[in-house]
Amino acid sequence: MGKRIELRTGVLQANDMMAAANRRLFAQYSVLAVNVMSSPGAGKTTVLEKTILELKPRLRIAVIEGDLYTDWDARRIESTGVPVYQINTRGGCHLDARMVREACEHVPLADVDVVLIENVGNLVCPAEFDLGEDFRVVVCTTTEGNDKPWKYPLMFQQAEAVLLNKMDLLPLTDFNVKEFEKALSSINPEAKIFYVSGRTGQGIEEWCSWLQGKVGKRKAQQN
Amino acid sequence: MGKRIELRTGVLQANDMMAAANRRLFAQYSVLAVNVMSSPGAGKTTVLEKTILELKPRLRIAVIEGDLYTDWDARRIESTGVPVYQINTRGGCHLDARMVREACEHVPLADVDVVLIENVGNLVCPAEFDLGEDFRVVVCTTTEGNDKPWKYPLMFQQAEAVLLNKMDLLPLTDFNVKEFEKALSSINPEAKIFYVSGRTGQGIEEWCSWLQGKVGKRKAQQN
Repeated sequence: MGKRIELRTGVLQANDMMAAANRRLFAQYSVLAVNVMSSPGAGKTTVLEKTILELKPRLRIAVIEGDLYTDWDARRIESTGVPVYQINTRGGCHLDARMVREACEHVPLADVDVVLIENVGNLVCPAEFDLGEDFRVVVCTTTEGNDKPWKYPLMFQQAEAVLLNKMDLLPLTDFNVKEFEKALSSINPEAKIFYVSGRTGQGIEEWCSWLQGKVGKRKAQQN
Repeated sequence: MGKRIELRTGVLQANDMMAAANRRLFAQYSVLAVNVMSSPGAGKTTVLEKTILELKPRLRIAVIEGDLYTDWDARRIESTGVPVYQINTRGGCHLDARMVREACEHVPLADVDVVLIENVGNLVCPAEFDLGEDFRVVVCTTTEGNDKPWKYPLMFQQAEAVLLNKMDLLPLTDFNVKEFEKALSSINPEAKIFYVSGRTGQGIEEWCSWLQGKVGKRKAQQN
């Protein structure tokens, strides 16, 4: 196991260096970079579609789309009219900083305020890989158990915001919002929670205002 | 990358050898071993609870429970009265054959007909690790997209059966059952589908009869 752990550390160190380079690149263009993560099927793409439609009149958005094989999510995002670049990991369980760097060569950073990076659907591995983002957002749902922050602590520890999606289904589930809030605040007391539904649009405006505020702060920081 | 891939192959080869040893161990005791996988929050534990309650009068069941950190799922299973052994991967994204081997030292194999192994919630990495199981079952849900088999093909290719869970929520989602069946049958035409709800118990009896049939075949093979 020694050799494996050592190599793994090496992989993470190499990733951290590339992530730092990405962070400098985003800063150079005053672009806010957001790493969006979730379980498979939590509705990241639907939430991003709604987010883009809400913010497009006010912000210049680009999307980097991570998937194992297909380009379906990228096509869905493309139909909102913003630039999107697809990364296929070919079975790989997470995005890494090098993939994002390569994607950035195809993203018009000079004409963009915010890059939304949709990671591979996985609550474990993506948490270990810094992409050079400004912050991370986790999408989770009322149809999963409310114990997720306890079960996947690294993912939730590092989130600046958590979007609790599928709020429209809440009355039909056993999901306990109070228990979820308690779990999240034990793991990460600073995390901001938004209660949303990608399907009905509930809560999207509040989340978008917050995100727009972050873009504003990013620009102010730069000047 | 060359070194990484080579080491990765080495890890998988070592795992395959241990998996083969586990397979011999299960065969020696005529135990059917089932590797149960899903996304986080798909309801594996709830489905297993219902499965155990249905089958307990007819079969001797043990459970090996995989989680990153907590032992909550193991406690839930324990309350059904069957032997359960918890593996904590301490952040690791999948079970491997060595972990299952160690767990088996605590499982009374001589007094068991079927071992249900609940893998870590993850649709990517667990698919690559043979545990020595007789077959694999994937639990997915009507609250995820119906495109999951296309997006996580390795997971679905290797499934003997797929349990489509949360059928009680189907009328409230945009999930298209026909599209899901089409996707699954393109990826894996042999896979058996069960339409279940861990919450209401729908479909559990049919799935349990099938599983009991598999146990019967396993015993017959042995004799």
